[in-house]
Amino acid sequence: MNGAESLVATLVDQGVDICFANPGTSEMHFLAALGGNPKMRSVLCLFEGVATGAADGWYRMKEKPASTLLHLGPGLANGLANIHNAKRASSGMVNVVGEHSVSHLKYDPPLTSDIEGLARPLCHWVRRAESSDTIAWDAAQAVAKASEHPGQIATLILPGDTSWQQVGATSAAPEPSFTPAPPAAKRKTPSAERIEHVARVLRSGEPTLIVLANRATRGVALEKAGRVAAATGARLGSQFFTARIERGAGRVPISRIPYAVAQATAFLKDFKHIVTVETKEPVAFFAYPDKPSLLKAEGTLVHPLVEDDEDSELAFDMLLQALGAANQAPLLQPRIETPAPTGALNPMSIAHALAAALPEHCIVVDESLTTGRESMGLTMGAQPHDLINNMGGSIGYATPVATGAALACPDRRVFCMVGDGSAMYTIQSLWTQARENLNVTTIIFANNSYAILKAEYANMGAGAPSERALSMIDIDRPRIDWLAMAKSMGVPSVAVQTAEDFHKAMVNSTRESGPCLIEVRL
Amino acid sequence: MNGAESLVATLVDQGVDICFANPGTSEMHFLAALGGNPKMRSVLCLFEGVATGAADGWYRMKEKPASTLLHLGPGLANGLANIHNAKRASSGMVNVVGEHSVSHLKYDPPLTSDIEGLARPLCHWVRRAESSDTIAWDAAQAVAKASEHPGQIATLILPGDTSWQQVGATSAAPEPSFTPAPPAAKRKTPSAERIEHVARVLRSGEPTLIVLANRATRGVALEKAGRVAAATGARLGSQFFTARIERGAGRVPISRIPYAVAQATAFLKDFKHIVTVETKEPVAFFAYPDKPSLLKAEGTLVHPLVEDDEDSELAFDMLLQALGAANQAPLLQPRIETPAPTGALNPMSIAHALAAALPEHCIVVDESLTTGRESMGLTMGAQPHDLINNMGGSIGYATPVATGAALACPDRRVFCMVGDGSAMYTIQSLWTQARENLNVTTIIFANNSYAILKAEYANMGAGAPSERALSMIDIDRPRIDWLAMAKSMGVPSVAVQTAEDFHKAMVNSTRESGPCLIEVRL
Repeated sequence: MNGAESLVATLVDQGVDICFANPGTSEMHFLAALGGNPKMRSVLCLFEGVATGAADGWYRMKEKPASTLLHLGPGLANGLANIHNAKRASSGMVNVVGEHSVSHLKYDPPLTSDIEGLARPLCHWVRRAESSDTIAWDAAQAVAKASEHPGQIATLILPGDTSWQQVGATSAAPEPSFTPAPPAAKRKTPSAERIEHVARVLRSGEPTLIVLANRATRGVALEKAGRVAAATGARLGSQFFTARIERGAGRVPISRIPYAVAQATAFLKDFKHIVTVETKEPVAFFAYPDKPSLLKAEGTLVHPLVEDDEDSELAFDMLLQALGAANQAPLLQPRIETPAPTGALNPMSIAHALAAALPEHCIVVDESLTTGRESMGLTMGAQPHDLINNMGGSIGYATPVATGAALACPDRRVFCMVGDGSAMYTIQSLWTQARENLNVTTIIFANNSYAILKAEYANMGAGAPSERALSMIDIDRPRIDWLAMAKSMGVPSVAVQTAEDFHKAMVNSTRESGPCLIEVRL
Repeated sequence: MNGAESLVATLVDQGVDICFANPGTSEMHFLAALGGNPKMRSVLCLFEGVATGAADGWYRMKEKPASTLLHLGPGLANGLANIHNAKRASSGMVNVVGEHSVSHLKYDPPLTSDIEGLARPLCHWVRRAESSDTIAWDAAQAVAKASEHPGQIATLILPGDTSWQQVGATSAAPEPSFTPAPPAAKRKTPSAERIEHVARVLRSGEPTLIVLANRATRGVALEKAGRVAAATGARLGSQFFTARIERGAGRVPISRIPYAVAQATAFLKDFKHIVTVETKEPVAFFAYPDKPSLLKAEGTLVHPLVEDDEDSELAFDMLLQALGAANQAPLLQPRIETPAPTGALNPMSIAHALAAALPEHCIVVDESLTTGRESMGLTMGAQPHDLINNMGGSIGYATPVATGAALACPDRRVFCMVGDGSAMYTIQSLWTQARENLNVTTIIFANNSYAILKAEYANMGAGAPSERALSMIDIDRPRIDWLAMAKSMGVPSVAVQTAEDFHKAMVNSTRESGPCLIEVRL
């Protein structure tokens, strides 16, 4: 057994059984080891941002880390933007980054760079695997770190010689059978004082918003948050972006704080209290010359209930106990039957088409920015589904995350809503979707512009854009031919120009397995 | 005048008059300033790696820096792989990276990251522009740094408030008219001792290879190197990868050290001396279990003649003086008329087709890895042209560099030779080429595999790849449809399957302005 085989065996032992890979020369032994271990699934990506984004999507659905394989410093660099997004979404992942052998590094060959330096700003844990004898321990620690709550980014640097040397060649080798048990994410217990304090706030009857995030926006924790809301009249909210929300008919409804500063402050202005659960108080996404960074009204008090590393489910149990409301039923979102819309495509008809078309238990990955901004309110009563947002704000997250989510949940259709500008950053995802025959419906909102920037130009007080400035916001010369783009990577596609065709195309996409792309011409 | 306008005015004053931009919300004032300054050309890129690679291509041809506009830490991260390549090619560039306002950063909004931390491993100079009053000085220093010899990577972080605040709002403002003069790259004088030492080596008549790099592979410096070679019988060589070589008929010929370790050591084994000019002694690109890192034969002596920051032209003058050969004529490459080949496509017929088709003064950007590896020897006697290589080894450099080179030299056709695997990393370049109607002929060598990795798998001693390992090297499921890919981004295209069709397609591509893509089906 060589170092690479030991690494792959350890990953599998620790429950990391998928690797999103973009390999290079220095990783040939690792590639051989991936191929040689039948318990490891390897998924080839043509760009590293697809690999790291897919690992994020995998974690969001599975709540356990995937691994990636990246080629030296520049390969890691190409994956960093989606590592940033994953980090902000509290997704754990284990990145394996190939590196020159120790003996070769001193000659500073062309691909040499400071891999640790590149990794540290965006990874929680970075280590260089110094020996094939100890790499199993390094790998186990990487997985343990990635599996913490909240999930962590662990990056293991794999020099060529560590990869190809035999385990046990030196006396330092530990017993090969002695492997730590797969990690379980431990969540801390919230402080009883904080619970008591929030119970008092809620009992006051003053208008209160409970902002939920991460594990609190799904499963039992969400259901218990719904009990608290029902017992106290508090409203449940989420940040504009959330890692994953379980929503739709039969779920506890959550109101979304709007994106734009003016709308967000209007939404928040009447709450006397904001209670935070696995998140912080709402802040503006960007700074603007004449707008506030903090979105709450003057005088609104913020009360942390659950910190990032604590257990929301337990916190709500404690809170329900403190409130004497342990048997309170939650208020659930009723099903709203939305007729399939007809006519022109606009944010409203698009939202109605979504509400009518989304099948039960589908997954929606949203990077639609402007076009989709109205969708969420109008799909509250759709069939139950999961909604995934871009937590880090680095564009190009949706198509890779959809890829990972589809691999994590092969029986569920993934709808990936993405603006045309956003889709171009990591469009190579389509190829992996075709290769793996993934159930992803990519919906391209083709407005031929960075539409969000048009609004932001005015928000920034930069005046009316000049023709030359506007030419840097419009992406209509040339128009991207999305049907050709889909064809180039083996994904069937259709273009729609009406609400009824959009609805029909979404429904049709669920009838067969495999990916498809819908160009929504706006 | 606000900070953004001051920045753009300073860049233009200092001779940086093009910006490869991928903007976001925090850069709206900078975008307005770009649009408002008629001396600044802005080129929109749909992915940041295209922007930084294009800046590299611009520098390679112009020998002066371009600027880029990137959106916060993740935008910089997406550009880092081609920054790595540019750094290794000694290309200077000025990156402007948007950032949140100081007052907003403390709330840790989603797009926040340690931008300095991300920049430092691959940039020579990193600074945060703290005030609109002093940003002109920061910008001038960035350009001065980027314009050093060898070129440097300068990264200026631009917070939103620095961008939008008026210059002169505080008393710290310097006189607006007091701008430093545009920088001139100063090159150091080589040590006379070293020159004398190398003159003695060359006079010995022992077999000597002079390895040229950077500025020594073109212009007057190359011509003078040719005089030295003619006077002493020394051979001129280059590393396998060089930033830019002027070659072809009428140029001083340079032999390329092969890529593969066995071939490189065979090429070098008979040289008793290696003289280095703006480079170091040849090393293997990667480490292999049973192969050396240093490629020279045992007993071969290495003599540095010109260090990276020194003046090759001056060094060769001094050397010719020391050799008493000031009037020696160089040996020049005669023109070799290559008939257009016919029949099957293979490395030989591909090279012949190139030799026959390359028009005078064209630019060849090479990232063909396996397919094009034979091309160079067989195009020595083609019409004079420039050849650009990937110095950093991070894949995905060619299509962006070709984009920048075409903007730098609008009257010259650029041939971008790229493998299908490599092309997919930064394929968004095609869109910018279509948008700017650039004279780029992209040649995709479509072998539907990461062919280099097949060879490297064996070189690494990883045995014969298993079917599962092989599936991570082949990219034929699905095959990429290159005609559809080109169409999707507005680039006309043609597929060829014979040598005569390949030759004809290249010739045809030069007849009209604008980009085109040739899929070479292998």
